[in-house]
Amino acid sequence: MPRVSEAHLERRRRQILDAARACFIRKGFYETSMQDVFTESGLSAGAVYRYFKSKDELVKAIATEGEALLTRFLEQLLDEDPLPPLDEIVGRFADFALTLTAPDGILRIAPHAWAAAMYNPDITVAIQELIRTIRTWLFKIVERQRDVGRLPPDVDVEAVGTTLSFAMPGFVLARLLMGDVDADTFRNGIAGLLAAPVQASVPD
Amino acid sequence: MPRVSEAHLERRRRQILDAARACFIRKGFYETSMQDVFTESGLSAGAVYRYFKSKDELVKAIATEGEALLTRFLEQLLDEDPLPPLDEIVGRFADFALTLTAPDGILRIAPHAWAAAMYNPDITVAIQELIRTIRTWLFKIVERQRDVGRLPPDVDVEAVGTTLSFAMPGFVLARLLMGDVDADTFRNGIAGLLAAPVQASVPD
Repeated sequence: MPRVSEAHLERRRRQILDAARACFIRKGFYETSMQDVFTESGLSAGAVYRYFKSKDELVKAIATEGEALLTRFLEQLLDEDPLPPLDEIVGRFADFALTLTAPDGILRIAPHAWAAAMYNPDITVAIQELIRTIRTWLFKIVERQRDVGRLPPDVDVEAVGTTLSFAMPGFVLARLLMGDVDADTFRNGIAGLLAAPVQASVPD
Repeated sequence: MPRVSEAHLERRRRQILDAARACFIRKGFYETSMQDVFTESGLSAGAVYRYFKSKDELVKAIATEGEALLTRFLEQLLDEDPLPPLDEIVGRFADFALTLTAPDGILRIAPHAWAAAMYNPDITVAIQELIRTIRTWLFKIVERQRDVGRLPPDVDVEAVGTTLSFAMPGFVLARLLMGDVDADTFRNGIAGLLAAPVQASVPD
């Protein structure tokens, strides 16, 4: 058996994942078969199965890729000095997310992944992990905003971070299904909330 | 042919929709067949087809029901005097949404509907309409908040309303997949953003 290089293995893996992503975007998870992935990738069943034993493994590998992309982006944002204001961070995050909603973008699979997570335990675990990762980064971002005085000292970091995380699926969904939102919608929406005059705590 | 009363027709329709919802929650849209709906409802194919010609018609009828439930709730909220603060409105909306994520709740179908909307044009249209309805109500809520001075006079109503609408799918998804969020998470998250000290518009 000939020895194959690391680079070759990685190229093959990439080729299979790209083919799987294209199939999932076109047909969703349920209607995509391993046969579709063989056809799309131009590889034999044996070649594909050497890398991925099942459709679920493909789905999980794509979720892991998405998580890595996201983490890299948020890590960079958090390292910036001076720290951008929260609306700016949200806007840049939205700009980044939009690049992933292009016709072959990984975020086009997101709604299928959410649906599958409702009753495929492996996919549930992958999506839970992704949600936890996003939240953890948002907690750090909210903490830094608090530390520089842009949020109140007693702000509920977890509630604000989690609420920001709520908005991400809806932004992606609105972009995919309505097509009429962009990063400025999200940026200006957060800016509008942040600009609220602080209320006296008396009942009105 | 015996005459059937309006009430009887409505009961039958209800029985079929409840059965379809139960099937969709259990198996998603793709794996649910009309045969599953016949079995679950205890009705014959002929009886079901008299009301709904296809699975898509069932999906659309359930989306329309969801829209009606939502509209009724938001309409009541908007009529309240004095107007509750935005975080309170969001919290009450979240409480309401949570009742619809119970084991037989209509919102358990939401992730399946989003996924199906990605490539079933009829479902796309139904979900687009639902998103537009939610946004329109949120625009009115944001306008009223602005009018009573709780948001700046020049607030971007559409951006804030649309951004609030982004958070709703993510809240539902987090509740269904993580189970660790409640109405207070959402309420306190919005309250934290609203409590931000207004920034001087100088670069830092």
